Amino acid sequence: MTGLPPAWRSVLPCLGEPLPPDLTPQAAATGVSVQLPLELVRQAISAREWWPIPEPVRAEYARYRPSPLWRARRFEAEIGARVPIYVKYEGGNLSGSHKLNTALAQAYYYQRAGVRELVTGTGAGQWGTALAAAAATFGLACTVFMVDGSLRDKPYRGSLMRLLGASVHASPSALTGLGRGSGGPAGNSLALAIGEAVEYAKAGPGRAFCIGSGETYSLLHQSVIGLEAIEQLSEADARVGAVIGCVGAGSNFGGAALPFLAGYAAGELGELPELVAAESAATPKLTRGVYAYDVTDATGTGPLEAMYTIGSGFAIPSSHAAGLRFHGAAKLVSALRHRGQVAAVAIGQAEALEAGRRFALAELVVPAPEAGHALAAAARAATGEVPAKEDGVLVCVSGHGLLDLTAYDDLLAGTVTDTPADEQALRAATARLRLVTAQSAGVS
Amino acid sequence: MTGLPPAWRSVLPCLGEPLPPDLTPQAAATGVSVQLPLELVRQAISAREWWPIPEPVRAEYARYRPSPLWRARRFEAEIGARVPIYVKYEGGNLSGSHKLNTALAQAYYYQRAGVRELVTGTGAGQWGTALAAAAATFGLACTVFMVDGSLRDKPYRGSLMRLLGASVHASPSALTGLGRGSGGPAGNSLALAIGEAVEYAKAGPGRAFCIGSGETYSLLHQSVIGLEAIEQLSEADARVGAVIGCVGAGSNFGGAALPFLAGYAAGELGELPELVAAESAATPKLTRGVYAYDVTDATGTGPLEAMYTIGSGFAIPSSHAAGLRFHGAAKLVSALRHRGQVAAVAIGQAEALEAGRRFALAELVVPAPEAGHALAAAARAATGEVPAKEDGVLVCVSGHGLLDLTAYDDLLAGTVTDTPADEQALRAATARLRLVTAQSAGVS
Repeated sequence: MTGLPPAWRSVLPCLGEPLPPDLTPQAAATGVSVQLPLELVRQAISAREWWPIPEPVRAEYARYRPSPLWRARRFEAEIGARVPIYVKYEGGNLSGSHKLNTALAQAYYYQRAGVRELVTGTGAGQWGTALAAAAATFGLACTVFMVDGSLRDKPYRGSLMRLLGASVHASPSALTGLGRGSGGPAGNSLALAIGEAVEYAKAGPGRAFCIGSGETYSLLHQSVIGLEAIEQLSEADARVGAVIGCVGAGSNFGGAALPFLAGYAAGELGELPELVAAESAATPKLTRGVYAYDVTDATGTGPLEAMYTIGSGFAIPSSHAAGLRFHGAAKLVSALRHRGQVAAVAIGQAEALEAGRRFALAELVVPAPEAGHALAAAARAATGEVPAKEDGVLVCVSGHGLLDLTAYDDLLAGTVTDTPADEQALRAATARLRLVTAQSAGVS
Repeated sequence: MTGLPPAWRSVLPCLGEPLPPDLTPQAAATGVSVQLPLELVRQAISAREWWPIPEPVRAEYARYRPSPLWRARRFEAEIGARVPIYVKYEGGNLSGSHKLNTALAQAYYYQRAGVRELVTGTGAGQWGTALAAAAATFGLACTVFMVDGSLRDKPYRGSLMRLLGASVHASPSALTGLGRGSGGPAGNSLALAIGEAVEYAKAGPGRAFCIGSGETYSLLHQSVIGLEAIEQLSEADARVGAVIGCVGAGSNFGGAALPFLAGYAAGELGELPELVAAESAATPKLTRGVYAYDVTDATGTGPLEAMYTIGSGFAIPSSHAAGLRFHGAAKLVSALRHRGQVAAVAIGQAEALEAGRRFALAELVVPAPEAGHALAAAARAATGEVPAKEDGVLVCVSGHGLLDLTAYDDLLAGTVTDTPADEQALRAATARLRLVTAQSAGVS
């Protein structure tokens, strides 16, 4: 297991204070709560820094990790980069994205907790595929609610999940009250799919609802990305002035970038690169959202979490980067953004797909449309004014785009359109949210 | 470039005699011939054993090679194997299959010869994708004729080739006389697509027709697979009693297996494993065909080559393993089969896809339907009577099946059918072929 980190690394201790606590509404307090395995609870709140990766999980990691890191010299030439661009590629595993890193950990913990069926909602299908693969690995059943439009646009995603033994339902479905009452496809369709999964999980014994991104423990599991990258860059004697990842809720960006923050805080890195979250201009929570208490799904029964959000009721336009179609950012990423430790940039999907196309031609790796946002941000960073130091850019390519090729078809056909979030709609969707203040967050 | 072979290895010297020469019909002799680069001509006929890989090609190989080899312990458990099964996986590159190994070499030689546009025909699309990627790498244009039904079944293949800059045409097309005169989809659709490519390439200056499989030089380029595998097995201190690969024309099987033959002939290997070609029961050239002179495409103008064949006019049923839908085997593989140095087994697609499904669940790698045939043959070999020695089985998984997921959809839906070649149709399709005899082959 050469090069595979023995432990995950938490950035929570660097904060020096706990994250703002969730606010539990009445409905959730009285509802049947699904038990989260103790280890995941601890990983979400403890100030412990290093978490040894359980051997069964590490053995699975060893089948596809360390993931490759290389200098993208042809992409640099293609875009006229003035500094080196290093790529950390997470698309080489069966699930096709970084999501498998946390799916395996979660499946392991849930299996040990006696759970027999993992349930989730998925947008682009990457999380659903990862969870299906992890469930198959640890002998669990798996049920996935996938956004209806996404399932139609990316039918192979459904096929792949079914091949891995999962039950796949288009959301809204007839299986849940939420789906039946939805009156058809919703504006915030991912929140609805997640809400259906929550309801379905609560309705059956032995079922657990799993979350792919925003949770603090999933960011912890993703720290293998950044930990490996730091070592790989060091071996290549390479320095980077920026670390860039795309943000749906934030697990890819967080996994790649936050170990740099932890390493710098521990005095192991001489300088801290800029940590740049590349989000979709259609869901610009980090650049145009508010730091407020909001829900993560559409059931309205979950806790309110402190996050950068454009409002869970915001009608998100359809997009090829379905994995970025989420209204909020992870609590941890949001807190760091609020403290000024994370930079953010919003990228339109046309720019993202064009960056992805040029990367595919140059590097012979087709990036997912989501990762195209990170590549576009990297291209901007590498072609802008030369920084004082000639440090490079590290960009995490979160997954492959082989099951998203219709996006590139549309790009070649010239039919890709951008719909940046409307200012008035943003204001309306966030108007009633309670902003996070020093007082509400319990911060002195 | 650790572990990457410095040279290709030819098995031709092991034969001790040249391959039966092609028979050039009148039409070909008077037609405009497309110039094959001298180096490819030499590689197809020379008795030289080692061919240094040109640095630009080797630099490209280094981006995705050595390809991984691992012991498939969970697949062994899943099928109840009595001996270890080692997997050599060629699906990890952008083209998704081993075909990139020869595509890069060919693109390099053609570019040096002044060619500006590579033209080919493709069935499953793996060869077309590989050639599109190689052409993009060496700055050449690329035009692909893809079997119409395949292009409809696997639309993402077309998308991927276009993303890589290739022009993709459904065959039969209106671009060629052959396509216009075909009266629609043909029984031997791959031979028609290849024939269209040949005609199109001849019609324009600077164009060259490229062949993905059967040519002796493409088997030479594929020798990197087996050369790496021998070294990887040796490092793992593993012995194999059988080497198995699937056979369309034979470049995957040949690439994986023939370096074992060359190594044994040179006294480097103590024992020679059985070399097992896994073909489709729908196109059983090696198990039920004849060793005769036949054409490789549907133009009827090419040379007659000595090959195991079911007849170029045989109406091949549609199949999910489109890459195996070819009527003949490579000249080199055929000659070795005729000498008894290559074993063969015919596998139905239901058995192949079920082996692929079980492999995907166990190893978290989705194999192409073509590779499913090799996996089914490996499962047969590993679960059969225990050989005297407990040697393992090496199986080459030629590519991933992420763009072939409809095949697995059909498997799960129970709608996969098998159509083994009909005896009478086989007899009819091969009745007029001139058999290869010692005399006709120029062998004393």
